[in-house]
Amino acid sequence: MDSHFIKQLVNVVGEKHVLHTPEDLAVYSYDGTFAEGSPEVVLLPANTEQVSRVVKLAAKARVPVVPRGMGSGMAAGSIPMVEGGMVISLTRMNHILEIDTENATVLTEAGVITADLQAAVEKIGLFYPPDPSSIRHSTIGGNIACNAGGPRCLKYGVTGDYVLGLTVVLADGRILKTGGKPIKDVTGYDLNGLFTGSEGTLGLVTEALLRLVAKPRFAKTALAEFASLDYASRTVTAILSAGIVPASLELMDQTALVCIEEAMHLGLNTDVEASLIIETDGADEQTVTNEIVSCVKICKETGAQSVKLAQNETERASLWKARRSISPSLARKAPNKLGEDITVPRSAIPEVIQRLRKISAKHGLPIAIFGHAGDGNLHPNILFDKRQPEQWGKVEQMVAEIFEASLAVGGTLSGEHGVGMLKRPYMEKALGSVSIDVQCHIKQALDPLNILNPGKIFPA
Amino acid sequence: MDSHFIKQLVNVVGEKHVLHTPEDLAVYSYDGTFAEGSPEVVLLPANTEQVSRVVKLAAKARVPVVPRGMGSGMAAGSIPMVEGGMVISLTRMNHILEIDTENATVLTEAGVITADLQAAVEKIGLFYPPDPSSIRHSTIGGNIACNAGGPRCLKYGVTGDYVLGLTVVLADGRILKTGGKPIKDVTGYDLNGLFTGSEGTLGLVTEALLRLVAKPRFAKTALAEFASLDYASRTVTAILSAGIVPASLELMDQTALVCIEEAMHLGLNTDVEASLIIETDGADEQTVTNEIVSCVKICKETGAQSVKLAQNETERASLWKARRSISPSLARKAPNKLGEDITVPRSAIPEVIQRLRKISAKHGLPIAIFGHAGDGNLHPNILFDKRQPEQWGKVEQMVAEIFEASLAVGGTLSGEHGVGMLKRPYMEKALGSVSIDVQCHIKQALDPLNILNPGKIFPA
Repeated sequence: MDSHFIKQLVNVVGEKHVLHTPEDLAVYSYDGTFAEGSPEVVLLPANTEQVSRVVKLAAKARVPVVPRGMGSGMAAGSIPMVEGGMVISLTRMNHILEIDTENATVLTEAGVITADLQAAVEKIGLFYPPDPSSIRHSTIGGNIACNAGGPRCLKYGVTGDYVLGLTVVLADGRILKTGGKPIKDVTGYDLNGLFTGSEGTLGLVTEALLRLVAKPRFAKTALAEFASLDYASRTVTAILSAGIVPASLELMDQTALVCIEEAMHLGLNTDVEASLIIETDGADEQTVTNEIVSCVKICKETGAQSVKLAQNETERASLWKARRSISPSLARKAPNKLGEDITVPRSAIPEVIQRLRKISAKHGLPIAIFGHAGDGNLHPNILFDKRQPEQWGKVEQMVAEIFEASLAVGGTLSGEHGVGMLKRPYMEKALGSVSIDVQCHIKQALDPLNILNPGKIFPA
Repeated sequence: MDSHFIKQLVNVVGEKHVLHTPEDLAVYSYDGTFAEGSPEVVLLPANTEQVSRVVKLAAKARVPVVPRGMGSGMAAGSIPMVEGGMVISLTRMNHILEIDTENATVLTEAGVITADLQAAVEKIGLFYPPDPSSIRHSTIGGNIACNAGGPRCLKYGVTGDYVLGLTVVLADGRILKTGGKPIKDVTGYDLNGLFTGSEGTLGLVTEALLRLVAKPRFAKTALAEFASLDYASRTVTAILSAGIVPASLELMDQTALVCIEEAMHLGLNTDVEASLIIETDGADEQTVTNEIVSCVKICKETGAQSVKLAQNETERASLWKARRSISPSLARKAPNKLGEDITVPRSAIPEVIQRLRKISAKHGLPIAIFGHAGDGNLHPNILFDKRQPEQWGKVEQMVAEIFEASLAVGGTLSGEHGVGMLKRPYMEKALGSVSIDVQCHIKQALDPLNILNPGKIFPA
């Protein structure tokens, strides 16, 4: 990268915010996956105007631009595909600009940590529901780029359901403003929807106007254990068919339960095929209680071996402890894990889990499965040791087979992580060539020079 | 239109389904507005394959294609912009293809009447919530083209929130399939969102896979009357802030109330500035009752002059009668009405209504205002006599001023009707030139010959 170009970048964002030593660049070469890719320069702009000026320079010089939040992504979307180009880190843009209590909206910069935003609005009785498990270290901008989900999304919807408006720096550096405070808007194409989940390939989201709801004041939680996965799956359908929409309906399979129990000694029954954590929430305690009691009743009718209903906050925290311990528990079981994010029609959960088990048995590596059963969104985690090259070879093969299993039952590659670099080889099979062609035309229309996060989403 | 081309069309859809007599064409020259535009030919294809073949012929011959459902649109989106071209009416594609009870989805052809679809799924305990007032004569395909809303959308969301997948015939006749039964899907760009609300300018939606929910079993309704609009508006915010999300929060202003009372003699208090109809619904009777009782309490605290809570279904129907009688009542008051569809931030409802009153006073024509207060989505209806040319001139001026009023308070041109031909002149002011440019690039990318519904959405 020539020194004249670097100087131009320094002129925009200041010397301190242009990083190019090998040590600095190394920090921005990773995300939440096993992929790596080093940028030539990292910029830390302070505002939308600076992002716009930097992208204009990049466009002129044909330098690839990779937008990045905290780099916790699970699809290698925020690291350069090939060596080179610039990473634009939005972490300095971490200010909440306005909370409008009357309209229940928040205007925020993209670099705000999602948990910080949630805490700020909860202080005044409002609520931003999406809760990806990275919530404490991922940014709103990253969540928007991936259209992130989380356990609460069954009831409340995903990140995109809360996006009312965006400030986006386009591929030529122009600044686009979409949407506004009105809840309904059919004036032209749905640009909020198009940019949300586009993983930085169509523009850099620098600010977002988000819809909020009233903070639920009560929550009740139950844990149900099922001898058979079919029973657990049937229970999910029965609860939703009864008109109850729990905040969460989280599934853990036997392999996950065994890992958790070995690590945490919580007294979980590891002889069962699956457990469900069910949580209801809302503004009215009686309603929340009625709903969880109905869920418990349904669990018993649909074949639960046991159901525990938390009687107080301590018991509630203890039920969630199993679910929250999954990641550290898996880490104790094997040096590495690779977590996928398939989503299937709810009715196909038992079948896809059977298929995943066969994949595990075939390759001799465990797959722990947990996820958001109400949405059909499962996280199969392959447990392995990356230091053993033959295991890594198996893992790559298993990932391909996991995607095949999902597509075979009418599922999809990703429910909340995105495509990034890693799922590109499977895109055409998942979506078909016409869909890929339509999406490439949109990409080409908005980024004709292909400088925005090149090498992501689309098959090479 | 040359006879060879007509013959090719006949070969695809059959002689009976190619209309070109002046009488037949006249039927397809109108929609729910005052606009007119005659096609040269109307086609009634039986399936997606026929639509695809017809669009291929149209593309080759550079003939404009205007997709149409039942022609009840409120923005002149489904009639030709200029004389000529073909209308493709999807009304023969009126079959429900699959109801999947376990996954709560319905696969339907685009020409199914929305009320028919609702009745079919309600028979088995499922529920398709969007309820545009045209529900008994508009089609699912038309609803998707406009991303239609309705009173229930406060709680349940708009049409787009239920679209899981689409079959779309593209501008070159290729068939695109988007989405699927998984509830969450971030595999690539959100094409469901892009096509929904695109008013037939990017493709013809021929089939849709829609998400369903459990049918709410109970509903409770109250009518609250407010001496001041400010009180009514404050009530809306207070109810939502309390964590209650009613199915509907419908507002009627004094002009609307006077019209209804004059026509229907329902005993409405016409001395008040506004009434709110509040409805809660759900699976559990006690919860639904608790919620409406809380709403009634809030109404009283926030200054309602009177609140009536329906004690049974008869009383409930009687409260809704006022809201449902608005259209016929306005028709009695003046020979013509022109209804707009602005959406403003909830907090701006009182201010925008003041502005609308000034517009009414300035031009000497009444504006009756009603709409979905919870969403900030208002329908100002100008009452006039089209036979008097100077009145029509005033109406056109008033429409422009209504849009200005909405934009001035942070609102938008349309919450659920769409842009069509009629709102094009205001688009640049509403969205800004960058947004229009981005949207035109998307249109150009997907319809390079500009044959799909030309002259709609975008400024000339």
